[in-house]
Amino acid sequence: MPQARDLILSRRELEFLLYDWLDVTALTARPRFAAHSRETFDAVLELAADIATEKFAPHNKRNDAEEPRFVTTDGVGRVELHDEVAPALRAAAEAGLLSATMDEQAGGLQLPYVVGVALQAWFHAANVGTWAYAMLTVANANLLLAHAAPELVDAYVPAMLEGRAHGTMCLSEPQAGSSLADITTRAEPAPDGTYRVTGTKMWISGGDHELGENIVHLVLAKVPGGPAGVRGISLFLVPKILPDGTRNDVALTGVNHKMGYRGTVNTLLSFGESGGAVGHLVGAEGRGLALMFHMMNEARVGVGAGAAALACTGYLKSLDYARGRPQGRPAGAKDPSAPMVPIVRHADVRRMLLAQKAYAEGALALVLYCGRLVDEERTGPDPEGAHLLLETLTPIAKSWPSQWGLEANALAIQVQGGYGYTREYDVEQHYRDNRLNPIHEGTHGIQAADLLGRKVVMAGGAGFAALCDRVRDTVARAGEDGGTADEAAQLGAALDRLVEVTGLLHDHPDVEARLANAGVYLEAAGHVVVAWLWLDQVLAAAGREDDLARGKRAAARFFFRFELPKVGPWLELLASLDRTTLDTDPDWL
Amino acid sequence: MPQARDLILSRRELEFLLYDWLDVTALTARPRFAAHSRETFDAVLELAADIATEKFAPHNKRNDAEEPRFVTTDGVGRVELHDEVAPALRAAAEAGLLSATMDEQAGGLQLPYVVGVALQAWFHAANVGTWAYAMLTVANANLLLAHAAPELVDAYVPAMLEGRAHGTMCLSEPQAGSSLADITTRAEPAPDGTYRVTGTKMWISGGDHELGENIVHLVLAKVPGGPAGVRGISLFLVPKILPDGTRNDVALTGVNHKMGYRGTVNTLLSFGESGGAVGHLVGAEGRGLALMFHMMNEARVGVGAGAAALACTGYLKSLDYARGRPQGRPAGAKDPSAPMVPIVRHADVRRMLLAQKAYAEGALALVLYCGRLVDEERTGPDPEGAHLLLETLTPIAKSWPSQWGLEANALAIQVQGGYGYTREYDVEQHYRDNRLNPIHEGTHGIQAADLLGRKVVMAGGAGFAALCDRVRDTVARAGEDGGTADEAAQLGAALDRLVEVTGLLHDHPDVEARLANAGVYLEAAGHVVVAWLWLDQVLAAAGREDDLARGKRAAARFFFRFELPKVGPWLELLASLDRTTLDTDPDWL
Repeated sequence: MPQARDLILSRRELEFLLYDWLDVTALTARPRFAAHSRETFDAVLELAADIATEKFAPHNKRNDAEEPRFVTTDGVGRVELHDEVAPALRAAAEAGLLSATMDEQAGGLQLPYVVGVALQAWFHAANVGTWAYAMLTVANANLLLAHAAPELVDAYVPAMLEGRAHGTMCLSEPQAGSSLADITTRAEPAPDGTYRVTGTKMWISGGDHELGENIVHLVLAKVPGGPAGVRGISLFLVPKILPDGTRNDVALTGVNHKMGYRGTVNTLLSFGESGGAVGHLVGAEGRGLALMFHMMNEARVGVGAGAAALACTGYLKSLDYARGRPQGRPAGAKDPSAPMVPIVRHADVRRMLLAQKAYAEGALALVLYCGRLVDEERTGPDPEGAHLLLETLTPIAKSWPSQWGLEANALAIQVQGGYGYTREYDVEQHYRDNRLNPIHEGTHGIQAADLLGRKVVMAGGAGFAALCDRVRDTVARAGEDGGTADEAAQLGAALDRLVEVTGLLHDHPDVEARLANAGVYLEAAGHVVVAWLWLDQVLAAAGREDDLARGKRAAARFFFRFELPKVGPWLELLASLDRTTLDTDPDWL
Repeated sequence: MPQARDLILSRRELEFLLYDWLDVTALTARPRFAAHSRETFDAVLELAADIATEKFAPHNKRNDAEEPRFVTTDGVGRVELHDEVAPALRAAAEAGLLSATMDEQAGGLQLPYVVGVALQAWFHAANVGTWAYAMLTVANANLLLAHAAPELVDAYVPAMLEGRAHGTMCLSEPQAGSSLADITTRAEPAPDGTYRVTGTKMWISGGDHELGENIVHLVLAKVPGGPAGVRGISLFLVPKILPDGTRNDVALTGVNHKMGYRGTVNTLLSFGESGGAVGHLVGAEGRGLALMFHMMNEARVGVGAGAAALACTGYLKSLDYARGRPQGRPAGAKDPSAPMVPIVRHADVRRMLLAQKAYAEGALALVLYCGRLVDEERTGPDPEGAHLLLETLTPIAKSWPSQWGLEANALAIQVQGGYGYTREYDVEQHYRDNRLNPIHEGTHGIQAADLLGRKVVMAGGAGFAALCDRVRDTVARAGEDGGTADEAAQLGAALDRLVEVTGLLHDHPDVEARLANAGVYLEAAGHVVVAWLWLDQVLAAAGREDDLARGKRAAARFFFRFELPKVGPWLELLASLDRTTLDTDPDWL
């Protein structure tokens, strides 16, 4: 029987991706990581796995059943969480895992970012609802470390990394969700150099709770008199509790009740009801959105990583079920008194497991690859190239795992049948939790517009060109081996067509027509990218005949035969500059 | 502002499908329906819409939030439902809607079956959790009317149709879900001609409650000494309450807690814990599964109808939201101070609405078409042909709406963004409710095996040939008009390839390889069928320039450009007799 931990994530799989495929050990040759070795990486990952298994996974269901509660005490609204959330987060913080990838001088372990992604995957898979408090805190602290004045960093960051304070990101407002240019929260300069923040923020995860002594809100607001649109937006640090121990003017005014991801409280916050919340400018005025994107890009890859991790754990759980559940007989079997076989023996069940494996491990590979690019951005050899490639991949790393990881969870339910549909099993919660991922941190549609409208053309298309170069490199290497020549040819052709269609769209004069089917472009580009990563994994497993290597080849074969061919019709639709969506009058709907 | 009723279903849409497309009024020329007219059809549909709006929709959310509860009173387990379920069901029964399509001599209104499907769609869309009790009762009563001895019919059916008693279907057991040949529930003959039933039944919807004075269980069981496998299965009527008012030996031993569809209690029942539950044989011994399939086929189309209805209501709600929610500006707009536009103006949102419309109305068309075939089965002109075609379409009518209706609901959430993910709005519940549909009444995999392994070859392929004839007829008619010639050619080519691939699979000697990708075959056949129905709807709207007709053409265009091309890769995969799933050793997963 697999242990609980083996149903959260596969250590064997993570090790393959980190060491056999991404050669993360090679990073230890770089000065930044000189203190590290495969042993220190493994030790930290082991610690993460232990804490995830022992402190996070056990209350994942409870997070779902016992939602955060809005209560009012002495006229003040506050959020109550059940009693297992805080100890879990404290354990992770005390083990140093929140600052694992941060600089040593900031108190961090200075681990490669890619190891940090792997480490987080354990927590995402074990309990995404609780881990989100830590994830937001880490992203918040990273932004402050990069852009805030030293005295602000000193005043707030250590408490966050030690688990004594937590962070939020306050972007959306009731009238401005995806459309951040339209926020109306105001920040008025005060004589002492601080600001007074007034406005309503919506969809704020972790916006209130009593997990620590403080909550550090990072708030987008407009300074009166500034330019309209995004250039008028600045970023402010607004603490829940002021340094003198009194409450800042930040009120909890509501909580949302979600389909899933219920462990993470989602709030409506009102700033400045009593005159103005004290806020500190982070970075320069008018730079708010740019700075927030620092955090947002990290958060987007984080969303993809969470989606991938949920896909992985759902896969492992449904695989375990399929191996243990006897039902029916092989196709063509005639004797009704023969014993039943485990459902993993049925081709259609194996199809659903292979699809999950292809989606889950493809998604995990994608986000780890992006993590590896963060390390290349920081330590070379080509930081600018790595940066452009990462920027280009980010909308895909956010959206592809969200879309196909959700599909993987749907298949995990399907493998478990009626059992999978009940809350007595885990997979339906993973599915509900994962359904958030195509929405938050920029919807699928936002990612699509970002990819086609911005990323593939930025820097003269250099990021997209870098992506194509890396794909072609894999194609060339795979083409040299008879075992992968067909896949190499198939991927090469798909990439060529993607490049052609990208150029064709780019050259089209009508921006509305060019972007009309951006969502389809995102799907096509995503499938090409993941096919590339699968082929690259197969190369990394070349010559091996163990179960893992054979499984990699089987899943890659599945992806190339069942999934990659979908790209053909998508690209033809794009090439036709189809106007169906544009030409449909809303009144006809 | 649309009224609540207009967000449940579109009457305009239903009327188009029933009258403009399926010409249901023509049925009134047949003796069975001579007492009816368009006016009586409309009156009944209006009544259904009223009751659905006023009695069912208002407690749909409450069904979700206040699940049926397992309580124990004096040592006896029972299920408690909240107090709005019973009055709603009573209102529908008192209006005669449960027996709407039954014979006049059985107390029915003798309406066409297709009108009954439309009528039920109102209830499915308004509140599928409550309606399921009625749906199960109707299917149960239909089976008894067709196959039970007259004294059993007299004893049980009138109470069911009047809403005083309810029905269940007890097939699955803990060790036998999809594999019904492996049930172990036993029925021992008693001297008085009845049987004593002993065993455990699982996943029994409506298995216990106090909605009426009795529950009529239809139970599959094996009479000792019978043959192994399905030929040893017989069907028994086992009432919860015996004619003398005492409880039969049927105990509630558990309830399942589901992701959705929570209003319908799902139970574990134990028969014969105190020696044997009194059961009455329905039909002949050994005919149980065949008879149950009478009910099951009806239930399968009913599942498809429910999935379609949920897709329709989710579409209407997200469309309403999209028309009212301002956010962002058109692609290419430069002025950040220009007013925001409703999100329905964004191409990507229209894509999500068109996709929902294509899925929802395509699915509704499919199940209504099947309803029309039931009427052809009963009243000619070619009952046997209609029967074979209906048998062939049933796995598609069950699975296609379940799969794509769910996808429609996923898009309804996506259109509404964060709001759609909260339980404050309706669409996330529709999505959770709809997730059951690919599982119950035969999983997707079971439908796929049924279609490819049985339906397309039965009667020498006559059902499949009849389907192809009807598709070709539409193709021929559409080909005569310049406005639909392209779609006609595209559908004709897809059908030709489907026929070729079907033959190729049929001729393949290895049954395992033939059926390995049955799931993909089901998808391909489903898309071809729905494309056909879309093209046929466009023909029915030819020459019209009102919003509905334009909307039909826009959704059909969407389906032919965004969806039908998917069939190409699916059929090529099938044609290659791909062995990926067969060749993957479970140990590699």
